[in-house]
Amino acid sequence: MKKFINDASQVEDQMIQGMVKAYPDHLRKLDCGNVVVRAQKKEGKVALISGGGSGHEPAHGGFVGEGMLDAAVAGAVFTSPTPDQIYEGIKAIATDKGVLMVVKNYTGDVMNFEMAADMAEAEGIPVQYVVTNDDVAVKDSLYTIGRRGVAGTIFVHKIAGAKAETGASLDEVHAVAQKVVDNVRTMGAAISPCIVPAAGEPGFELGNDEIEIGIGIHGEPGTHREKMRPADEIVDILLEQILSDLDYTGSEVALLVNGSGGTPLMELYILNNHIADVLAEKGIKVYRTMVGNYMTSIEMQGFSISLLKLDDEMKELLDAKADTPAWKE
Amino acid sequence: MKKFINDASQVEDQMIQGMVKAYPDHLRKLDCGNVVVRAQKKEGKVALISGGGSGHEPAHGGFVGEGMLDAAVAGAVFTSPTPDQIYEGIKAIATDKGVLMVVKNYTGDVMNFEMAADMAEAEGIPVQYVVTNDDVAVKDSLYTIGRRGVAGTIFVHKIAGAKAETGASLDEVHAVAQKVVDNVRTMGAAISPCIVPAAGEPGFELGNDEIEIGIGIHGEPGTHREKMRPADEIVDILLEQILSDLDYTGSEVALLVNGSGGTPLMELYILNNHIADVLAEKGIKVYRTMVGNYMTSIEMQGFSISLLKLDDEMKELLDAKADTPAWKE
Repeated sequence: MKKFINDASQVEDQMIQGMVKAYPDHLRKLDCGNVVVRAQKKEGKVALISGGGSGHEPAHGGFVGEGMLDAAVAGAVFTSPTPDQIYEGIKAIATDKGVLMVVKNYTGDVMNFEMAADMAEAEGIPVQYVVTNDDVAVKDSLYTIGRRGVAGTIFVHKIAGAKAETGASLDEVHAVAQKVVDNVRTMGAAISPCIVPAAGEPGFELGNDEIEIGIGIHGEPGTHREKMRPADEIVDILLEQILSDLDYTGSEVALLVNGSGGTPLMELYILNNHIADVLAEKGIKVYRTMVGNYMTSIEMQGFSISLLKLDDEMKELLDAKADTPAWKE
Repeated sequence: MKKFINDASQVEDQMIQGMVKAYPDHLRKLDCGNVVVRAQKKEGKVALISGGGSGHEPAHGGFVGEGMLDAAVAGAVFTSPTPDQIYEGIKAIATDKGVLMVVKNYTGDVMNFEMAADMAEAEGIPVQYVVTNDDVAVKDSLYTIGRRGVAGTIFVHKIAGAKAETGASLDEVHAVAQKVVDNVRTMGAAISPCIVPAAGEPGFELGNDEIEIGIGIHGEPGTHREKMRPADEIVDILLEQILSDLDYTGSEVALLVNGSGGTPLMELYILNNHIADVLAEKGIKVYRTMVGNYMTSIEMQGFSISLLKLDDEMKELLDAKADTPAWKE
């Protein structure tokens, strides 16, 4: 394993410290562990918290700031944060309007966020949450009952975050977050594995001419492996699954072409070239495209396509001001 | 070679098309080739053009837009654009205030941009240029007489671009661009090679425990190879070279921790953790930090550190409004 790290056991701590040192105007780290909150707490709004295992950078700490999250909790790489950690995050950001948790659907995450919510509610903090489950690849998976929450989660951060910034109630912010969850679908593929630093070796092996279709954001299996294909054919496979899962006919969509961490932007643009053509052919209007590393899997060479079916409210909130390390608007 | 591409001979064309399809509000492609210009031409300001070989995405097309570049010219991967291409770019963006070219110091790039400038001046378009040469690693290199122009170039785009937006004259925009060139230094390292699609194999080989110190943005040799070290020690080696090349004592700096394309953001943050500590120890104040993929080398796992010594003018221009695909302010 060759990585720019010092010690596998220090990866999460040093990463969070390095992130906060890069963005001191945006981020502050709590003393209790790897919980990142806005440098200046904002009162009078619903506070948003998200997080999960580390290894998905810039998610989730990179999305803390005006118009998006108020806190992000980082567990060990690919491991849920603890209930205590999440609870400390909730306490640090809670306002009299309450707290919305955005949780990706992994069994450990859901359980720990729920426990933290119970702890917070026992202290009188109103907490609601949504569970993202945008990955259409597999129904149940290695770590999940039901579909996995993956890159589409970023749209929940942005849209619910913008709604919270307007001073909306917890019910209203929850409702728009759930609307995003209900209208976003994602599917990915990868051609190389990722290496969890503490493990020191790849989480899976792929042959020189193989691709994993439907891969998860921890390198967990997708629908199947097959021979490597041209980029356009891979796009066709993923889009077919996504478009058959939700009726996008005649819709406007937000499109996220998400890199897994090791994929050159050059290749993401080449993928987008065909994605845009297919959607145009099918009469699906792309209102907005984002291309880049938003929800990564350490150094995995892969990508995912997320399509969010928009309405006017979501369009307005998607374009509203955001000032975070990884998303500015 | 496993990449998300269709055909090595189509990589540049499909990438540029995919980029323009992602950002139609920002970018327009000229019919004459891989030249990207602002979707809406802006008159009454000096127009900025940059570019070079493809493979450095988001550089340079990702920096076309308000407050930065007016055009970016993309050659084949790691190959200078032709004089004709650059000339078409200049003609498309030229205003009565003239054109500034930002050229990275590679022999082919400098020659071709100079030829294009001659063609434009013969048509009565005033053209000036700066040549960036921020890489302190090697004096001459595989493709360069003198130092190489690398990631520090992005600061020229931002600061000269913001100056141009104020309506400043060509002489004034040139002067601030040259000031950035004179005050920025960069050095990088890599632990894995990159693969030019048309070549189909890595441009160099590194052992399982080796690192190339001082590597260039095309994977060309740096100062030396050595055994892999912890991240902090690599930072120490690079910073020592940078800080011994220019006197930063008591200065405020802008810091760019640039990823080479295949490096996880996790590792860039870990690197920044120590960079920030070393600079603080030395009394160098970091005014602003940027961490991410700005000037890449396809899928290379590497990074570079750029330090720009700031004055009040550069600080103001660094923070001025920008609206481009890859840098928003």
